[in-house]
Amino acid sequence: MAEHTVIMENTLRKLLAEKKYATLREILITMNPSDIAAIFDELEEDRLPLLYRLLPKELAADVFVEMDQEAQELLIRGFSDSELKEVLDELFVDDAVDIIEEMPATVVRRILSQADPEMRKSINEILRYPESSAGSIMTTEYISLRPQMTVAEAITRIRRTGIDKETIYTCYVTKDRTLIGVVTVKDLLLCNDDDKLIADVMIDKVISVNTHDDQEEVAQMFSKYNFMALPVVDGENRLVGIVTFDDAMDVMEEEATEDIEKMAAIIPSEKPYMSMSPFEIWKNRIPWLMLLMVSATFTGIIISHFESALAKLVILTAFIPMLMDTAGNSGSQASVTIIRGLSLNEIEFKDILQIIWKEARVAVLCGISLAVACFAKILLVDYLILGSFAEVTMASPFLIIGVICITLAITVLFAKIVGCSLPLFAKKLGFDPAVMASPFITTIVDALSLLVYFGIANIFLPL
Amino acid sequence: MAEHTVIMENTLRKLLAEKKYATLREILITMNPSDIAAIFDELEEDRLPLLYRLLPKELAADVFVEMDQEAQELLIRGFSDSELKEVLDELFVDDAVDIIEEMPATVVRRILSQADPEMRKSINEILRYPESSAGSIMTTEYISLRPQMTVAEAITRIRRTGIDKETIYTCYVTKDRTLIGVVTVKDLLLCNDDDKLIADVMIDKVISVNTHDDQEEVAQMFSKYNFMALPVVDGENRLVGIVTFDDAMDVMEEEATEDIEKMAAIIPSEKPYMSMSPFEIWKNRIPWLMLLMVSATFTGIIISHFESALAKLVILTAFIPMLMDTAGNSGSQASVTIIRGLSLNEIEFKDILQIIWKEARVAVLCGISLAVACFAKILLVDYLILGSFAEVTMASPFLIIGVICITLAITVLFAKIVGCSLPLFAKKLGFDPAVMASPFITTIVDALSLLVYFGIANIFLPL
Repeated sequence: MAEHTVIMENTLRKLLAEKKYATLREILITMNPSDIAAIFDELEEDRLPLLYRLLPKELAADVFVEMDQEAQELLIRGFSDSELKEVLDELFVDDAVDIIEEMPATVVRRILSQADPEMRKSINEILRYPESSAGSIMTTEYISLRPQMTVAEAITRIRRTGIDKETIYTCYVTKDRTLIGVVTVKDLLLCNDDDKLIADVMIDKVISVNTHDDQEEVAQMFSKYNFMALPVVDGENRLVGIVTFDDAMDVMEEEATEDIEKMAAIIPSEKPYMSMSPFEIWKNRIPWLMLLMVSATFTGIIISHFESALAKLVILTAFIPMLMDTAGNSGSQASVTIIRGLSLNEIEFKDILQIIWKEARVAVLCGISLAVACFAKILLVDYLILGSFAEVTMASPFLIIGVICITLAITVLFAKIVGCSLPLFAKKLGFDPAVMASPFITTIVDALSLLVYFGIANIFLPL
Repeated sequence: MAEHTVIMENTLRKLLAEKKYATLREILITMNPSDIAAIFDELEEDRLPLLYRLLPKELAADVFVEMDQEAQELLIRGFSDSELKEVLDELFVDDAVDIIEEMPATVVRRILSQADPEMRKSINEILRYPESSAGSIMTTEYISLRPQMTVAEAITRIRRTGIDKETIYTCYVTKDRTLIGVVTVKDLLLCNDDDKLIADVMIDKVISVNTHDDQEEVAQMFSKYNFMALPVVDGENRLVGIVTFDDAMDVMEEEATEDIEKMAAIIPSEKPYMSMSPFEIWKNRIPWLMLLMVSATFTGIIISHFESALAKLVILTAFIPMLMDTAGNSGSQASVTIIRGLSLNEIEFKDILQIIWKEARVAVLCGISLAVACFAKILLVDYLILGSFAEVTMASPFLIIGVICITLAITVLFAKIVGCSLPLFAKKLGFDPAVMASPFITTIVDALSLLVYFGIANIFLPL
């Protein structure tokens, strides 16, 4: 795929250098808009407008939608007013909104001044909705039918008005702008009585979303119900737009990326990595790095507090990283599982007791197996092969190894309990589980495991 | 949403206890199959079959598909042969395959014996394809048209055969079973000449996938091209099935969950968390915990090696966790970004030099800001407030703080470089970047940061 694109890019460059425009056009019109856009994104600034102008009007608009923001901005700045108007006329409203949201204010003003009045009105309406709401991702170009139409009339209406609609396959039945039913083209085509009324064919238990619902919830409804489109209504159940499955897919992908970034202590960004500057990346990464660095002060204080004990038995220091890492890994296994479950609506706060009980049993299993393995490993590797305990005279090596392994088992238990409950409480308190829980787990679990380590060492070893 | 389901569940339970079956049925038929399934999943074993039998035939099949595997198995075991046959007749082939893949062998045999011969053949065909391949998620129920049909004939054919098809909106044009074009119902309906030939309406640049392509690639194509369905062809470009967008959505969600689990050192599972036993969860989590625990031996060895130096200047120990955590966080920020970029096809191996150069600049920015903040924090908190350096006589506190901050800056640089390049090399070598890179980053970065720490301390401090 990627290699194929590179070959194509080279061919196009050559033809462009040789000014073989007719051939270029012949090639381009055989290609899919997404593939053309991928090639155009890589072109130099002076070649892009030249090649873009070779595309037939409709294809040009499809390609435009798929291009990078930088390339789009470049083209718009180069467009004459009539060229800009031509592209805008071919765009769906929701695509136009997506483009506008990324552009600087001067470009936005130019776009709005060239859009036809109806589109301008729709764009402004959609722009009013809060970011990440159902209203902000919807389109206003849907097919609406009246309940008293016949099936034949409905099909005629679809054939007449369908050309500009985002989807013709799901049609919405309204009465005084209120959404009262939904009917699919499949229902209409497979209905063997053309005189039947839409009111009798339509499904009246319509599942809809509100303009202010979060886009993540909307995407979840798509994956739950397998809809092709979902109607968006206002507070009075009046139909204002639809969201289609392709937008829901983009949201799903975006939201998964955001969750992953948050879990890795990164502030999510909508821009793709490759088009971000080092400074922008730094801005998204440094806040959490700073905060976590400062919060690691606690572990430092704990170690300082036990400095004299560590000075007496330095070998204890060698196992601090292993204990902290294993506890950290155990905790993040639990927290990540719960965070993802919450995102997919598979887990709710009311399951908390069941989850803690489950994690406790998992932790006992993990703790015991890790402790046994750890005992064998330290005995074999550190004691026998590396001779790490050779200079230890203060206490029996076996007692020290025992302390390490008991600490391991207990910290795994703590880590799993903290790891599974923190995201649930974060969610309950209205915070984002991925942000609140994941980055802090390590700090909390680090401190806990040190406290357990030194506590147990103090009991069993002569410190 | 969830609360609404709980209220509904209570109502249904009450009506069931009072044996008000007619009312129950009235309520159920107003509901969406997914919502009914969510409630049925929570019902007791003895009540489920009772309530299920109240559903009309078609709705029953739709609900069946959406239910948990446990509930499905329970129902199948209770079905008479004719009941099972009734449900199977209503299922789409790909849904039947999904169900069969989760069932024990005895149940599978019963299902296959009750399926009609054509469905049995299709099921067996799909089951032959490797897990996670395009073939394994496709359905064989699509509409195929001939190139010499007219638009009117095509519409008639769709109206006649569409009832059993997974989608009627995208139709495939074949000649001797070879895929030669694609035409949508929208094209057909909006075409104003009913006598036009399909060959003249269809798009002949068809994008298709091969039966053995990975399902992740298939899902990526959906999100790239915004298709509603994608044809699946065999080695000779013969059409064998289609994948629809709803299946692609499920795959996208599944693959994102898998990536997240792998990054958190968990072996991915297809079962939802709430229905896994503690033992099953333990099996998915313990291998990585073990491996990472053992690999932490290296950090232990490094610390042991510098034991005498640490004994002389114990305060150095207090900053080990902070240094290791900050380096670990920096590294995982980079690796997670690259892994996600690879999953979404936004990043490729050929970008490696550009990426390393970008990460190096990000690392310098992060390293310097962290070092400065760290210097200020140690001076203020550890030196002035906590008095941690009070007993240090061997070297100037400022020299020690300097060593810590320089180490911090250098390890952040190392961590970012390792973090961004490891996933790319893993991918290049044919390994899974999420599995190979993410869990190992911590171990590698831990060891590196300790080596840098003790190396720099050895140069500047009298150890």
